[in-house]
Amino acid sequence: MDVVARLRDLVTDPAAVSDDDDVREAHGRDISPHPPRSPEVVVFPSATAEIQAVLRFAGEHRLAVVPFGLGTSVEGQVIPVEGGISLDLSRMREILDVRPDDFLARVQAGVTRVQLNERLAHEGVFFPVDPGVDASIGGMVGTNASGTNAVRYGVMRDNVLGVEAVLADGTILRTGGMAVKSSAGYDLTRLFVGSEGTLGVISEVTLRIHRLPQFVMAARAVFPDLHAAAHAATRLIQSGMAIARVELLDEVTIAAVNAYSGTAYPARPTLFLEFSGSEVSVRHDVATAERIAAAAGAGPLEAEEDEEARARLWDARHHAALAIMATAPAKKLMSTDVCVPVSALADAVAEARRVVEAEGVTCAILGHVGDGNYHTVFMVDPDDEAEVARAARINAEIVRFALSRHGTCTGEHGIGLGKRAYLREERGAAVDAMQAIKRALDPNGILNPGKVLG
Amino acid sequence: MDVVARLRDLVTDPAAVSDDDDVREAHGRDISPHPPRSPEVVVFPSATAEIQAVLRFAGEHRLAVVPFGLGTSVEGQVIPVEGGISLDLSRMREILDVRPDDFLARVQAGVTRVQLNERLAHEGVFFPVDPGVDASIGGMVGTNASGTNAVRYGVMRDNVLGVEAVLADGTILRTGGMAVKSSAGYDLTRLFVGSEGTLGVISEVTLRIHRLPQFVMAARAVFPDLHAAAHAATRLIQSGMAIARVELLDEVTIAAVNAYSGTAYPARPTLFLEFSGSEVSVRHDVATAERIAAAAGAGPLEAEEDEEARARLWDARHHAALAIMATAPAKKLMSTDVCVPVSALADAVAEARRVVEAEGVTCAILGHVGDGNYHTVFMVDPDDEAEVARAARINAEIVRFALSRHGTCTGEHGIGLGKRAYLREERGAAVDAMQAIKRALDPNGILNPGKVLG
Repeated sequence: MDVVARLRDLVTDPAAVSDDDDVREAHGRDISPHPPRSPEVVVFPSATAEIQAVLRFAGEHRLAVVPFGLGTSVEGQVIPVEGGISLDLSRMREILDVRPDDFLARVQAGVTRVQLNERLAHEGVFFPVDPGVDASIGGMVGTNASGTNAVRYGVMRDNVLGVEAVLADGTILRTGGMAVKSSAGYDLTRLFVGSEGTLGVISEVTLRIHRLPQFVMAARAVFPDLHAAAHAATRLIQSGMAIARVELLDEVTIAAVNAYSGTAYPARPTLFLEFSGSEVSVRHDVATAERIAAAAGAGPLEAEEDEEARARLWDARHHAALAIMATAPAKKLMSTDVCVPVSALADAVAEARRVVEAEGVTCAILGHVGDGNYHTVFMVDPDDEAEVARAARINAEIVRFALSRHGTCTGEHGIGLGKRAYLREERGAAVDAMQAIKRALDPNGILNPGKVLG
Repeated sequence: MDVVARLRDLVTDPAAVSDDDDVREAHGRDISPHPPRSPEVVVFPSATAEIQAVLRFAGEHRLAVVPFGLGTSVEGQVIPVEGGISLDLSRMREILDVRPDDFLARVQAGVTRVQLNERLAHEGVFFPVDPGVDASIGGMVGTNASGTNAVRYGVMRDNVLGVEAVLADGTILRTGGMAVKSSAGYDLTRLFVGSEGTLGVISEVTLRIHRLPQFVMAARAVFPDLHAAAHAATRLIQSGMAIARVELLDEVTIAAVNAYSGTAYPARPTLFLEFSGSEVSVRHDVATAERIAAAAGAGPLEAEEDEEARARLWDARHHAALAIMATAPAKKLMSTDVCVPVSALADAVAEARRVVEAEGVTCAILGHVGDGNYHTVFMVDPDDEAEVARAARINAEIVRFALSRHGTCTGEHGIGLGKRAYLREERGAAVDAMQAIKRALDPNGILNPGKVLG
């Protein structure tokens, strides 16, 4: 069977189906060290009906289908481990509806967060979920992404009101609606958020958007050591103040950021903070935060009101992963992603440092510590078996510690290929229920096989 | 088979199994006009293991099992329409763990929200979700309940971190954990929230709790007519202020409340508002709200700082349903529960008024209008066919209008028996996916049969 020719019959534009080697190779990897594997063919649908046609065809011929956004997953989610079809959503980049009065927007799955926010800025609103790199909204739905704003605005699951998804059998379903709450039947919206392309292909998403805050201040607090910085983050959260961002960057991260972004931050464990609201409450919160940071050993807060200075600070933070990647361009990024109750944060970070030092690895520790979520990040040569094995040992130890504190193996990156080994350990019998749901919605297992439960 | 004797073998206390007529009858109805039907037997489990044993027995003998909290459902959720076993969780009322530092609490499903908040008050924290009457946490999980605080703190789905549930085959599963976010596999937590006892019996719940606000003011704004009050609610939300509660009570509701609670509020459409945060920001918000209300025709805001005065006002609001029930004690409560995007609120409320007036019914209109959720409430004689038919017509018209505005047929009461007719209209093909999930987790259909999808 000539799969390419058959697929070309299903789409308007013949160029939307490609078996070119470079195109296939670009769809066979993400930024993780998981071994690449090219799909047989890449399809770039332009409409939900084309996704439907491709899924029906794939179902008939038992071909794997792997949705692809920008390829920025870090647990191998987009790698077609069983070959088949990579479904690249990049042609579905239309912002369909923006309703600032109802604080919602409807977009096609290929729209990126940066693209969306450029559009929303004109209306005084924004979409808060901000993984480090730019990403497609569909991909962010897939992994239940979060980022620096989650401590105030929540994660994808809190900001998706509904999705349009195409199931394995080609059924197009719409979950949710435009009301901010509903008790009408099972919550399929949240089921699709975080399902990593294994239950359906997300084609459209209705998002909650938020009013830009009146007044914003960013600040840096520099600490004598990592434990003190993590402890201060915990105290900030426990104080109950409505802080907007609480990001930890250790000295290794800061050094990488300085080299990459041309900043000159002191290379010491640092909290990047943000406060927003009315000017009065922000200044009050900044003063409280300064006291809490000082009690944990920090020097005075370096606060920024100016919009450009704040943007520079958060760009530096958002580029941290790229900055670390730039330290070893020939290698791939390995990142742990545990999340613990905030009271366990300082101990968990200290334990992570102990684990990597015991393995003799230089690593960066950074993360969204306001949520109890942090990453231990280092570069790995995927062809060096010893490096790969060591990375796996480090990951395992850090995950086990988090689970012993009732935490999770993944706060925002998802299970993909890399965390499958821990899912049963974390969720127990719940995994059987997940498998039953997967079988019910995708009986032939054509959707992103080998991921999450595979 | 002597079901009672067999069930008594499965529990520690023989008195935990009852086929007494009064007990069965009390478990055969809720506060809605749906026809009552007694279960064959009522079991009061004391532990998750007893729930498991009952479910295994029920599965073997294909007996229906209907979880029962306090019987305050308003769509017939607890009525055992196929007989069988009513599983009353009232003996499972232990608060298992309270961790103010991590803003979470773990409770057995029979704990009530009032009981929980009495315990939490000692720690300076509270659980915000507040349906009008007291209710069990398990029941509130079942219907994805909300209430007056949802506009600030979200609904049950936003405040449940995890559940322990017993599946139809007796499997005990635990979803979620103590981390505030996770991307580890499918979101079974949110799937169970709002599943109305059809996917499993909730035995334990891990909840997000919240710090009591520093400073609080309540206020009333009285409007010349209902449309003006609804319009002002919309403008308050669109202003983006962090308002804590926005409740609408029409003149009929106010009159019932005055008669029931001994208050003397002017019998005119009124918004009950609450503002919380730092004192400075609260006073700023109250002034803004007063301007918005005045622009819509309200008189000056009647504001209350005093804790007792605020408690009186919110008690009056929480007793609104009881107050309306007291106007016709021989009848049962009929309540619509639509929720629309907030921009459609004023039109939707006006349309509801038009519909009930055209039917010649005196009704109360009230609700959580900050979320776009409102109730059209009136008393119905379940034995009067004409009254029941008229109630159904009114419900249908109000739901159709909400769906035409991309709203939902139920914001917080759930589908139960009463909204089944609208689920397909609202969700389309998504209902087939819900049914596939139901069959996957409860293949013999023993869990609360006839509800939601039935």
